Amino acid sequence: MKPLARAAIIAVGSELLTPLRFDTNSLFLTGQLNALGIDVVMKGVAGDDREELGHLFRAALGRADLVVFTGGLGPTDDDVTREVVASTLGRSLAEDTGITERLRVRFAARGFTGPMPESNRRQAMVPTGARVLENNRGSAPGLWLEEGDAVIVLLPGPPRELHPMVAALVDGPLRERSEGVPLLRRVLKISGRIESQTDEQLQPLYRKWEKGTPRVNATILAALGQLELHLWCRAPSTDAANQALERAVDEVCAVIGVDVFSTDGRPMEAVVGEMLASRGLHIALAESCTGGLLTSRLTDIPGSSRYVAQAVIAYTNEAKTALLGVPAPLIEAHGAVSEPVAVAMADGARTRAGVEVGVGVTGIAGPGGGTPEKPVGTVAVAASIAAETRSRLFRFHGERDQVKFQASQAALDMVRRMLL
Amino acid sequence: MKPLARAAIIAVGSELLTPLRFDTNSLFLTGQLNALGIDVVMKGVAGDDREELGHLFRAALGRADLVVFTGGLGPTDDDVTREVVASTLGRSLAEDTGITERLRVRFAARGFTGPMPESNRRQAMVPTGARVLENNRGSAPGLWLEEGDAVIVLLPGPPRELHPMVAALVDGPLRERSEGVPLLRRVLKISGRIESQTDEQLQPLYRKWEKGTPRVNATILAALGQLELHLWCRAPSTDAANQALERAVDEVCAVIGVDVFSTDGRPMEAVVGEMLASRGLHIALAESCTGGLLTSRLTDIPGSSRYVAQAVIAYTNEAKTALLGVPAPLIEAHGAVSEPVAVAMADGARTRAGVEVGVGVTGIAGPGGGTPEKPVGTVAVAASIAAETRSRLFRFHGERDQVKFQASQAALDMVRRMLL
Repeated sequence: MKPLARAAIIAVGSELLTPLRFDTNSLFLTGQLNALGIDVVMKGVAGDDREELGHLFRAALGRADLVVFTGGLGPTDDDVTREVVASTLGRSLAEDTGITERLRVRFAARGFTGPMPESNRRQAMVPTGARVLENNRGSAPGLWLEEGDAVIVLLPGPPRELHPMVAALVDGPLRERSEGVPLLRRVLKISGRIESQTDEQLQPLYRKWEKGTPRVNATILAALGQLELHLWCRAPSTDAANQALERAVDEVCAVIGVDVFSTDGRPMEAVVGEMLASRGLHIALAESCTGGLLTSRLTDIPGSSRYVAQAVIAYTNEAKTALLGVPAPLIEAHGAVSEPVAVAMADGARTRAGVEVGVGVTGIAGPGGGTPEKPVGTVAVAASIAAETRSRLFRFHGERDQVKFQASQAALDMVRRMLL
Repeated sequence: MKPLARAAIIAVGSELLTPLRFDTNSLFLTGQLNALGIDVVMKGVAGDDREELGHLFRAALGRADLVVFTGGLGPTDDDVTREVVASTLGRSLAEDTGITERLRVRFAARGFTGPMPESNRRQAMVPTGARVLENNRGSAPGLWLEEGDAVIVLLPGPPRELHPMVAALVDGPLRERSEGVPLLRRVLKISGRIESQTDEQLQPLYRKWEKGTPRVNATILAALGQLELHLWCRAPSTDAANQALERAVDEVCAVIGVDVFSTDGRPMEAVVGEMLASRGLHIALAESCTGGLLTSRLTDIPGSSRYVAQAVIAYTNEAKTALLGVPAPLIEAHGAVSEPVAVAMADGARTRAGVEVGVGVTGIAGPGGGTPEKPVGTVAVAASIAAETRSRLFRFHGERDQVKFQASQAALDMVRRMLL
């Protein structure tokens, strides 16, 4: 049989055709399939509707040798995936008594008394010739069908049920059927630069990589507070792809230098956290316009209680003075949004907590509060590490939450650069 | 001509077939189309590939009378949407000199000197019979084509270009072609309840609504820290739909009571913020395991500087004592994660800030730090408003960020219930 190379992913569920819900499973699935050398050539979403789902399935079968469904495997009348797949392939559905038995055990184990509702037995209906994929975290089993050279996989929608089932497929039948050339990716994150200038500087590398074996591809994307350089490589082996990507990462770092803050997709707060932890340093934070976001990002990282000492969120001038010791005349002279006040906040946070690193952020997140001299988006950031203090005034664009994020990113980046 | 009733949305771009990028435009488009009475019956994603995109387009044309494309309208060879649509419909492409002229003006206005690159002229290529949709925020114009009773719309991918163009379509040609029955939605958010029990209590309402005119549909979804009850209604007029939804919302509130915290999709932090603002109250927060997330959520709301006085993030016992006045013997006696300590944190935050409302949160976000008596996810929450104090010990499940979110949600909800 030919190895699987081209996948279509179909997410099933009427809620995915509303303005309220995403298909997030397909991103996870795409990463897993790519690593086996399987490209995703199309994605689709259909509602809980036999006719629409059948149409989309037929369209996918025409283009892909692997069709992966997520969702629509529950016990209700709305769960139509099993039925549509069976009827499209011209197969009949029959009850798998092994599944029914497992459903009964599960039902009883969850403390329900009395007989299992008949509707649950729908989940035991299996198209002729299908292989059952066990679901250890939910009631709906997955299904694996082969039709000529094509494979059709039915998986449940809830991510916590889906993920372990995909892991089992990738380690087992999917790997056996995919002798393709794996596609691996790396995401580099870059701060303090604009897209066009960075792209221009990297052009010679892009041209070199294009001619290389294996070839490395690159694309640069501007995200909030950072640039992302996506690299991908298809090579005969995972090792060869990893080596080519590793070389490319080194070459980018040689050109862009310390503006590259992450070479493995980790966010800024993880990078800064690791620097603090590895040096045994502790950090104290004084936030105004970021309103807690800066400290919340740092404390998203497991183990951050080792290096995040304490933080103060001081919106008012009085709080800045009382909690951080910022002199009232300093605020009077420069305004609350100013580099001298940010420095005094950073120093106050650091000395009051008795730690090595202090950060101060004060600004105007908007939409109100701007003035002609200090428009919305004006943010002063300062960091103080032992004897060294740095500060800078930024002008960020965007909505309130975007200003908050960019300000927190600038503060983390300032600490990172001082610790380099 | 028949009014448009069934839409397919196709997002174009190879980056949307990687593990890294979502199609977010389709959610926005779906809301806009639904409000005109147009259902979205399928969504698809294709890469920058003529053959794949053509296949998906033909599949969509077979099911929908409106096909909306987003993306693939730029100036490069990779931008294939115009070409694929023209060739699939058997039309030729010709340069629209009006567009070329606007592109030249735009190019010059942006300060570029010399002639416009030839590649930009690709954006002026228009299929025979297409109407041009102006793009005031970018170079790629949109296109409107009619083919029999069907309409095909090509729109640019960047949201800031897409949104105003969709607004113009909804006010103009799309509204003229859609005499359908508008579909409106409402999202109610509910705290402190589990899905199955709530669903059961609402069954009589569901049955009543099913028989009503206009009919109201409902579905309940469990989200992190809250339940969401989605209601939707299709009625001959927007007013009639709104009235039916309004009645349904009132009926739900009569059954579920104060557990309904939002009837218009607003998040908990906006609801609590409005309660504080309308009563002229100020809040001070003492966070431990939430690490700033609680205050960051409150300060996401514009105008929150009016009622968020200050906050302290105190991980260590020493910081809890120094910054909040939590007595060391109290921590010794009950442990840092305990209701008495949460109460002392709330009281300390409130009295030290000299405000009316204080909140304290202390817990174990994980993955480390759990014990048999106090496993990961154990969180004590307290709120103190004037003479009244409440506290409660929670056991949350999930990863670190999920525990943080649920703890912040529980704290906000406690304040909300005390202010009712």
